[in-house]
Amino acid sequence: MKNVATVILAAGKGTRLKSGLHKVLHPVAGRSMILHLLEQADELQPEKTVVIVGEYREQVQDALGDRVAYAVQEPQLGTGHAVQQAEGALSGFDGDVLILYGDVPFVKASTMRSMLDRLHADDAPAVVVLGFRPPATQGYGRVIADRFGRIEKMVEQKDANEAERACTLCNSGVMAVKGSELFALLSRVGNRNAQGEYYLTDIVNLANEDGRSCAVVECEDYKEVTGVNSRSELAAAEAQWQDFRRAEAMDAGVTLKAPETVYFSYDTQIGEDVTIEQNVVFGPGVSVASGATIRAFSHLEGATVGEGCEVGPFARLRPGAVMAEGSKVGNFVEMKKATLGKGAKANHLTYLGDATVGAGANIGAGTITCNYDGYFKHRTEIGDRAFIGSNSSLIAPVKIGADAIVAAGSAVSRDVADGEMRMVRAEQLVKPGWADRFHDAMKRKKAAAKGGEA
Amino acid sequence: MKNVATVILAAGKGTRLKSGLHKVLHPVAGRSMILHLLEQADELQPEKTVVIVGEYREQVQDALGDRVAYAVQEPQLGTGHAVQQAEGALSGFDGDVLILYGDVPFVKASTMRSMLDRLHADDAPAVVVLGFRPPATQGYGRVIADRFGRIEKMVEQKDANEAERACTLCNSGVMAVKGSELFALLSRVGNRNAQGEYYLTDIVNLANEDGRSCAVVECEDYKEVTGVNSRSELAAAEAQWQDFRRAEAMDAGVTLKAPETVYFSYDTQIGEDVTIEQNVVFGPGVSVASGATIRAFSHLEGATVGEGCEVGPFARLRPGAVMAEGSKVGNFVEMKKATLGKGAKANHLTYLGDATVGAGANIGAGTITCNYDGYFKHRTEIGDRAFIGSNSSLIAPVKIGADAIVAAGSAVSRDVADGEMRMVRAEQLVKPGWADRFHDAMKRKKAAAKGGEA
Amino acid sequence: MKNVATVILAAGKGTRLKSGLHKVLHPVAGRSMILHLLEQADELQPEKTVVIVGEYREQVQDALGDRVAYAVQEPQLGTGHAVQQAEGALSGFDGDVLILYGDVPFVKASTMRSMLDRLHADDAPAVVVLGFRPPATQGYGRVIADRFGRIEKMVEQKDANEAERACTLCNSGVMAVKGSELFALLSRVGNRNAQGEYYLTDIVNLANEDGRSCAVVECEDYKEVTGVNSRSELAAAEAQWQDFRRAEAMDAGVTLKAPETVYFSYDTQIGEDVTIEQNVVFGPGVSVASGATIRAFSHLEGATVGEGCEVGPFARLRPGAVMAEGSKVGNFVEMKKATLGKGAKANHLTYLGDATVGAGANIGAGTITCNYDGYFKHRTEIGDRAFIGSNSSLIAPVKIGADAIVAAGSAVSRDVADGEMRMVRAEQLVKPGWADRFHDAMKRKKAAAKGGEA
Repeated sequence: MKNVATVILAAGKGTRLKSGLHKVLHPVAGRSMILHLLEQADELQPEKTVVIVGEYREQVQDALGDRVAYAVQEPQLGTGHAVQQAEGALSGFDGDVLILYGDVPFVKASTMRSMLDRLHADDAPAVVVLGFRPPATQGYGRVIADRFGRIEKMVEQKDANEAERACTLCNSGVMAVKGSELFALLSRVGNRNAQGEYYLTDIVNLANEDGRSCAVVECEDYKEVTGVNSRSELAAAEAQWQDFRRAEAMDAGVTLKAPETVYFSYDTQIGEDVTIEQNVVFGPGVSVASGATIRAFSHLEGATVGEGCEVGPFARLRPGAVMAEGSKVGNFVEMKKATLGKGAKANHLTYLGDATVGAGANIGAGTITCNYDGYFKHRTEIGDRAFIGSNSSLIAPVKIGADAIVAAGSAVSRDVADGEMRMVRAEQLVKPGWADRFHDAMKRKKAAAKGGEA
Repeated sequence: MKNVATVILAAGKGTRLKSGLHKVLHPVAGRSMILHLLEQADELQPEKTVVIVGEYREQVQDALGDRVAYAVQEPQLGTGHAVQQAEGALSGFDGDVLILYGDVPFVKASTMRSMLDRLHADDAPAVVVLGFRPPATQGYGRVIADRFGRIEKMVEQKDANEAERACTLCNSGVMAVKGSELFALLSRVGNRNAQGEYYLTDIVNLANEDGRSCAVVECEDYKEVTGVNSRSELAAAEAQWQDFRRAEAMDAGVTLKAPETVYFSYDTQIGEDVTIEQNVVFGPGVSVASGATIRAFSHLEGATVGEGCEVGPFARLRPGAVMAEGSKVGNFVEMKKATLGKGAKANHLTYLGDATVGAGANIGAGTITCNYDGYFKHRTEIGDRAFIGSNSSLIAPVKIGADAIVAAGSAVSRDVADGEMRMVRAEQLVKPGWADRFHDAMKRKKAAAKGGEA
Repeated sequence: MKNVATVILAAGKGTRLKSGLHKVLHPVAGRSMILHLLEQADELQPEKTVVIVGEYREQVQDALGDRVAYAVQEPQLGTGHAVQQAEGALSGFDGDVLILYGDVPFVKASTMRSMLDRLHADDAPAVVVLGFRPPATQGYGRVIADRFGRIEKMVEQKDANEAERACTLCNSGVMAVKGSELFALLSRVGNRNAQGEYYLTDIVNLANEDGRSCAVVECEDYKEVTGVNSRSELAAAEAQWQDFRRAEAMDAGVTLKAPETVYFSYDTQIGEDVTIEQNVVFGPGVSVASGATIRAFSHLEGATVGEGCEVGPFARLRPGAVMAEGSKVGNFVEMKKATLGKGAKANHLTYLGDATVGAGANIGAGTITCNYDGYFKHRTEIGDRAFIGSNSSLIAPVKIGADAIVAAGSAVSRDVADGEMRMVRAEQLVKPGWADRFHDAMKRKKAAAKGGEA
């Protein structure tokens, strides 16, 4: 394969999104659209990647840093004009140029490769267009081509005659062009149209006029070229991604009780024979080992769940939560930067933050690791098989030894040795009859209050 | 525009709902169907609103009070008969009468206005019918009209010939009628039909027979005339309302990660660039300012969320929860009649009830405001930048001063002054080796119990 | 009706599921597929039920025990071969044989009966096939039959001519066969086909060749014969079951705010005028009495909810949770083997395990029953009208008397008598100015730490 450069259009901020965030930075499955696209494009190992920026360009540059080059398009006079801005960045480059769109995030590397391969087929086209067949063609430009994919003509919906409108192969705008020809063609594109814009698509007809062939490659699934111009379309792109990922998970041996209620992140890793119940949300950075069960209403981010673990219902694992094999996190429990040893359990109403819990330990209901003093975070270390009684407060930094016991309701601020028991409990004050007298007094007060209202 | 009166049919309790609650009082998006309809109808500023009641009429009257007049229909002998009951309430009224249905809650004020405008067009129809074009016409009566909307005939599905059945314009039952003609027409409606009922629709054919013209106005979206006769249809109406509202929110610049999992209330107010994650339920009375994030699994009712706030995941805001700019409520936290100051945080497992929290204060995990003594509710006041240690109980009425610190695990029943530290903690009893002995004893007991079982 | 035997095919483990669990044991609505099917088949009171097992057969046998007989198919040479293995188990049986599939779990008893009835109609067919009309017939074998349901021919999609392909009646594989003829027919089935398998379907054509009639019975809803071969199909079967059950609930007078978010179990019982909000999951063994409200984000298993109770939002009821009339369980509350008396309330952040709560009692926010000592579970008994202050720990075994009060933040390990007040609270240590000094020190430390970084 020849050297490849990619040009990614990302100059428009996406006015219809009504957002302070640039369109291509809006996330799908927890990762910005442009990063989805770059991940695929990077598989081609491009020599250069030029991102065309314009509005909100600092945002795009902050997000992508120096992994790509930038060219500024200002004002924005159409797609052809946008690609032209890459001329400087690509000067001296004579490989193949792949033109992509930051708001068309799902084009696959394999599709990009097919386009580049086609560019080097025997008929040596100057331009290869990515075509797609949507369920409804209304509004799309059509690619009129023969059965070998040689393009006769590109035609806009509004200019198409009846036969052309019947053509179901549409133009995605994604193109591969010989770098040696691209800018010469672009320089000839005019802007005599209703919008006064320079359209990239015109290079196809121009090349054809020169007697150069152009070709179309059709993507297997039209959903690869889903584009995003509004928040509704963003939500639809998210839904499309999720549906695809859910099917993939199930094919790989994951049980989803209600697939439509499970939300994966772009990088979620799930082992075989994992069961995921209803209403589970995965943020970035989660891996779940085989045989684990993620129960309903669970929320995981940056967490590592070991083999055969049980999470939830109503559990929240935050970044740095690590559950060793067979451990269990139950309802209304939050873990953050905390490790739960083999077979350890934190079943109810607990906060484990900045903590290490040993194997086989039992964390009672209502236990709180007091990890923050308002200024610094401190760690709690709990030994193997330790038993933390319910409603305890572990005031970090603090260590609870192996096999140690903390009595229920204790606020523990000093270390507890192995096998030691710590109990922090005041005297139980008994006041016989007090409650009865209190009830009587209060009932009178309440009656009086009502009397006052009346 | 002439004076308007509305007549709303709500006599049937809705037997198919199998409910102790009258059909029109069942809520959609947290508000009863009839109130949805009244809100639109009220935009016409009607001189009179007459609700036709019958079964469960006390319920309807309790719900609507004296903002409308009532007429009783008993027994219930059809829609024509129902409207006839309004004759007394409308005596002397000679404006336009709009006839609506309590179980057809989504008719828009703009549609109602179009109908009334049509009533005063040059051809001066006696009756204007609201027509709609559903995806499937099966079962609906058809409106046979010319291209000017002049009705030739109203025909029931079962009586329609083939050409008439091919007509896709259906009769919604909603009508605007000249008040001066309405009751005269109704008095001529007969009940010689299979059901023995008096049908309102018949007034169109009667007017036509008199040589009076009748007209149809078509509603833009057939979903405006969705009707509810069963709980499944109620759920479908709710879904329709929610879909509409979600699209509206996204168009206005709100990100919905998974729109199909977000449930709005009829009065929810959401600012620009708000992000709403999966599975969020809004009850009545919520407003969310711009830039806020409502994380997954959150439930809000009667709450005010300020700019840039973060709520959830797993947060519950109940009526009277007020979050100032940049404040944060985290997982398994409940707020009720409580104010969180600027930048204040209550991140974990907390109950804030009848409380005021100052700016920049930090409420530790497991904090409970003990606001109830079994008879009365009391307030907790927490100063700016105060730090409430984890697992504390604040026994109201109680004040915690600015910059004050409550040590973890404390039950505080007396006020804490500004800059003061309050610690309620008993002696830590240390019992070296106790836990080891306990484990041994218990293991023996357990083994013995098992021996006994065998 | 003649004696009936059922033969259920369950030899293939379901390779496409990529599971360590046999396919027919995967649950739909909390019950394995094969048990769904057996429940219906058992309504016919079959004399014998023979399950054909093969791969993972111990699993199937463990699950079903001795309620059925087993025959082993190994190797697995097709459906005809599978049924042949039942010959020994059915020796001497001359009633009717119904052939079912463990991975086609939703065939109704009424449909099975119709098939058996048809087997005894005047034209006395040897075989009755269950036909269905799917929305898309592609890939299914067709049943070519006359208008009396007499089968002319069974034909596979790939062998069908154009007219046959136009036939929309498809073969489900479910059959009823005269026991006296079944094995003679099966012995004549060959395996000369692409897969080298013995197909059960062939017995129809063989019987036809003998001049014996065969008949088709069509199932009312094609969804009755939904089959499961992958986890995606399992999820689709679950969705189908849930949709059916939701509609059934709504028809019976239950309000579902968002039916698509409510997940029932196979045995969930819901009374009239119950309201179920968004995102509610029912595990096995739940009953909800009339007038109760199950709020959003609730999870119930093995729980009994009384009349007019309120559950949630964010409540978790585990097995053995029993709520008496009018009682209330609120947010972030877990109940397990616990009874809540009439009108009692546990509204916030509470764990009630192995407990009895009397009528009218109030359980404060953050209350934990400390029911586990690491070895044994102990009970907590709370009397009528008792008031448990917030953030209390009730260290079981312990009894709190009627009308008794436990002060907020108390860890109670000894019984509290009726009308008594128990307060466990240490001295409140006041440290004026301490917090201010602490803040100053910490700010300096923080600044120093930052200085070090720079």
